[in-house]
Amino acid sequence: MTRETPQRHAPLRPATEAPRASSALLTDRYELTMIDAALRDGTASRPCVFELFGRRLPGARRFGVVAGTGRLLQELRDFRFGDDELRYLRDHRVVSADTVAFLEDYRFRGTIRGYREGELYFPGSPILTVEGGFAEAVVLETLALSILNHDSAVANAAARMSIAAGDRPLAEMGSRRAAERSAVAAARAAYIAGFGATSNLEAGRIWGIPTMGTAAHAWTLLHDTEEQAFRSQIDALGVDTTLLIDTYDIREGVATAIRVAGTALGGVRIDSGDLPTVAAEVRAQLDELGATNTRITVTSDLDEFAIAALAASPVDAYGVGTSVVTGSGAPTAGMVYKLVARQGGDGGWVSVAKASADKSSKGGRKAAFRTLDRGTATSELIAVSDGFEKIHTAAAHPDARALQVTLVDRGEPDASFEGPAGVDAARAHHALVREELPVKGLALSRSEPALPTVYIDA
Amino acid sequence: MTRETPQRHAPLRPATEAPRASSALLTDRYELTMIDAALRDGTASRPCVFELFGRRLPGARRFGVVAGTGRLLQELRDFRFGDDELRYLRDHRVVSADTVAFLEDYRFRGTIRGYREGELYFPGSPILTVEGGFAEAVVLETLALSILNHDSAVANAAARMSIAAGDRPLAEMGSRRAAERSAVAAARAAYIAGFGATSNLEAGRIWGIPTMGTAAHAWTLLHDTEEQAFRSQIDALGVDTTLLIDTYDIREGVATAIRVAGTALGGVRIDSGDLPTVAAEVRAQLDELGATNTRITVTSDLDEFAIAALAASPVDAYGVGTSVVTGSGAPTAGMVYKLVARQGGDGGWVSVAKASADKSSKGGRKAAFRTLDRGTATSELIAVSDGFEKIHTAAAHPDARALQVTLVDRGEPDASFEGPAGVDAARAHHALVREELPVKGLALSRSEPALPTVYIDA
Repeated sequence: MTRETPQRHAPLRPATEAPRASSALLTDRYELTMIDAALRDGTASRPCVFELFGRRLPGARRFGVVAGTGRLLQELRDFRFGDDELRYLRDHRVVSADTVAFLEDYRFRGTIRGYREGELYFPGSPILTVEGGFAEAVVLETLALSILNHDSAVANAAARMSIAAGDRPLAEMGSRRAAERSAVAAARAAYIAGFGATSNLEAGRIWGIPTMGTAAHAWTLLHDTEEQAFRSQIDALGVDTTLLIDTYDIREGVATAIRVAGTALGGVRIDSGDLPTVAAEVRAQLDELGATNTRITVTSDLDEFAIAALAASPVDAYGVGTSVVTGSGAPTAGMVYKLVARQGGDGGWVSVAKASADKSSKGGRKAAFRTLDRGTATSELIAVSDGFEKIHTAAAHPDARALQVTLVDRGEPDASFEGPAGVDAARAHHALVREELPVKGLALSRSEPALPTVYIDA
Repeated sequence: MTRETPQRHAPLRPATEAPRASSALLTDRYELTMIDAALRDGTASRPCVFELFGRRLPGARRFGVVAGTGRLLQELRDFRFGDDELRYLRDHRVVSADTVAFLEDYRFRGTIRGYREGELYFPGSPILTVEGGFAEAVVLETLALSILNHDSAVANAAARMSIAAGDRPLAEMGSRRAAERSAVAAARAAYIAGFGATSNLEAGRIWGIPTMGTAAHAWTLLHDTEEQAFRSQIDALGVDTTLLIDTYDIREGVATAIRVAGTALGGVRIDSGDLPTVAAEVRAQLDELGATNTRITVTSDLDEFAIAALAASPVDAYGVGTSVVTGSGAPTAGMVYKLVARQGGDGGWVSVAKASADKSSKGGRKAAFRTLDRGTATSELIAVSDGFEKIHTAAAHPDARALQVTLVDRGEPDASFEGPAGVDAARAHHALVREELPVKGLALSRSEPALPTVYIDA
């Protein structure tokens, strides 16, 4: 990993030109079973409002980070039941012939409003509000939750690591510890939440994320001596590359590196040992040898706590693997997708909510605002109403930022949230709104959310 | 979730007919950087042996379960650098023009031997042995680890849950708590390790796994009354369906269910509350009402410990979500991919291993056997040798089972391990080998592996 390798370019063509598989069966069977029954009893097109939200923050953290929205919009374009999908449903009698016919014509024609990607969220924040007929809206539950729960879990962990790292660059290199396609999504989510680069090439190709990486231990082991390995790497990548110096003995590795590369060596990478001790020793040795500008990158089992513990060590950059792609102890954001309002028989709206123990939810369509006091966030203000028209005039707090935007308008995703441009916008938005957090929001310890969620009647 | 819904059919066509994206860039950048340097210094085609193994078992568990092998073989067929991938690498100067030319012609022509999918593994077990030129073999590292680390983590958790559940059926329903494509892989891994069904329809379509599911809380909330919702569901799905009875008040829910369905109701599902208490109350109420054959399914935040704690409760089936798809606290199996042997300048084989603190590995090609005493496993016996020819005559223990099979022969995957048939074979193999575990291997507590890993010199 070197400073010279991260490269940032817009992809040459939109990712949608790649072969795209249908996303329609990335769905729990009961969604289709309910459509089946709803088509039969006449409730399939009953206007409904579903809400995607988290009851609590994963891992008792101070804030959540919304991620995955841009991916969801893209998968929504591919959420069509094609011949293969319909044949499976028909031949395995998952649903009736009438339902197969309904699904054949299906595309989502409703509206989705929600938080921007990169936005912070708190318990109860209405991250997505999906409005449409019951059948068309319920069927998006699994896909929406899969994407948001995974990507937000990674983004949340990444944001904490980014806070811990301060100004030092962070690279995501956890692909090997995540399923192969999740790894691409994880690289994307980490980048939105403050990482600067990824090792994952597909994330570079599809999402335009800077990629990095130079050599593994296998490179050294392939050669008869460490010196040969270093010499070959420098011949190929130049003296500004980063050499991995812990395959055998670290002190000898550093000496060999500088002997081969000279004091202009770009960097060394340490991937094992007690990092504060080792980093200090390596820095002292490099300085003694005159390689005062040679950077030190550390990459061994880091998480936000290990990064914070290295704040006073002479480390120039961090590479993070397992912990960021697995959400650092909270691999899912635990969001849910609930029916919160529907039209009644008289055409009026009815708020609905289940009353299950520990899993109760708050009915009604919601509008969300972040109140601010001289630039610092003070609360997550949620206005609850049965009537859509009333809600937008509610909560007209003088210093509040409205949190919801239209993501899908009568079936049409807003393309500005998709693709590499959507990723860039989300990353910029995240950096901006994280500045609004009160100081206690930056703490790594387990505790209460940094902002209270305040409900008001609209 | 009902007994009638799981359906088992072979898919009508091989999954490979679906649009397939290249898997070649699901790869860390440094793999290609190393190829770049190796092509330049002449080591790219140096014969090498890489090994994929776990240094320890995740979560201090008693055994690991190999999963993902069949998926890896399928992705290996798609591991080709197409126009899109090559254009990205060229335009972003990830590698040199010579390397682009090498990758254009790339396909893996080496040999992979390894453990069968569904097999148990222990620390140091040589789960995969990849043999080929340095460049062609090193480049598979990220993809192989991504797939095996994810799928094995899920399979391991699933196996423990399956042990805890005993003869009661287990269904996987965690799609919403896993990234959308990982969810399909997770359903597959859980099925291999003993689950009986999944909620994920794509897993049904692609891998032939039985699917299940009836209705969510949204179904009840959609209707004006719980009674209407139950009536509609029974009209559509028949009286043998499973009704979700905890949207409002459980006692009323059960009473309504039996009033609507009669005592022939297939089942009720409980998704909240203190399950041992609630299950006992619901069972008593059902019996009082005469619905003595109505089954109880529980689905609320179960893991292997919660399942074990319900062993004495009147529960008929379990649905497991978050915990199985996230590996129940160990979301990655933590396997690594290391160069263990290479040809030296004289054509002889050299064992290699790094010496990094806490991350040392054991060089040399390995052959693995499970020793048995009257059908019960006693050790993981690993014969280490530099010479391939010596190793197969080694460790000729009278009562030992050889653990490695050829998965890819000179570039050609063995199709019998792929597709739905591969899944069935893996599930059957897992059931068989789990029977060999000593009793202590069935414990859920954190401890030592159930078998010692014993190394012998060949």
